[in-house]
Amino acid sequence: MAPLYMDDLFVGQRFKSGTHSLDAAQIMVFARQFDPQYFHLDDVQAKTSLFGGLAASGWHTAALTMRMIVDSTPFPAGVIGTNANVKWPMPTRPGDVLHVESEIMSITPSQSRPDRGRLVMKSLTLNDRGDVVQELEATILVSRKPQGEVA
Amino acid sequence: MAPLYMDDLFVGQRFKSGTHSLDAAQIMVFARQFDPQYFHLDDVQAKTSLFGGLAASGWHTAALTMRMIVDSTPFPAGVIGTNANVKWPMPTRPGDVLHVESEIMSITPSQSRPDRGRLVMKSLTLNDRGDVVQELEATILVSRKPQGEVA
Repeated sequence: MAPLYMDDLFVGQRFKSGTHSLDAAQIMVFARQFDPQYFHLDDVQAKTSLFGGLAASGWHTAALTMRMIVDSTPFPAGVIGTNANVKWPMPTRPGDVLHVESEIMSITPSQSRPDRGRLVMKSLTLNDRGDVVQELEATILVSRKPQGEVA
Repeated sequence: MAPLYMDDLFVGQRFKSGTHSLDAAQIMVFARQFDPQYFHLDDVQAKTSLFGGLAASGWHTAALTMRMIVDSTPFPAGVIGTNANVKWPMPTRPGDVLHVESEIMSITPSQSRPDRGRLVMKSLTLNDRGDVVQELEATILVSRKPQGEVA
């Protein structure tokens, strides 16, 4: 992917990621380290939980989403978020094949730093049935094209 | 910890977690899987980035925060978030010793489900110098005390 500076981006621009296949083993490995609750760790016990079955930690879905965003967006300074709003309308399940669809909602040049700006990007994480399992709206720092560079 | 149902909780109630010591190896292992950007992976190259040195992925800080919240809050249904607002005012660095201070901001019984409610909890993740590296405000499902249980 050729790098896209702030000046190359536009509101409404979209990025679609590749896919990630999630299985029970990945869910449990993440949960053991970061979210050791029974509905993320034990297939049988999870049936008695609010989730009604094994579900990934929301933070696992968020981390996988980040990976898919990093792999599908060509921002030269990288994807550096300052804040994020995350919703998990549905659980992420073993067997889900996930992908992310992102859209630029706004672009704001920095008042104080002429070399950068920030954008708000909305990223939906979908499973292979088309259900949205996560909605993310994040503010991301972006670089402006270096002065003197040939366009 | 004795389980705390919705009826046992109050606005302003606080929970303080244990600590987590973060090092460069943990930062890189997480980043390789979920956020493979050079400022999370390479100590030397990271010096040229906006971070000015190796920094943890914000999603790593979020995942570590979740672990510390799970280990320090005694909600019987577990900690199930439906949405979260996360800010990263400062980078998390190798050598940081992190802990989380949480406070219940609001408690709302469900209109439709008498067995549950939701609370908004604000959780600050601090390093050992007292800097806030993450501010999290999350909506969490909580159980009400089962009917007929002796208080």
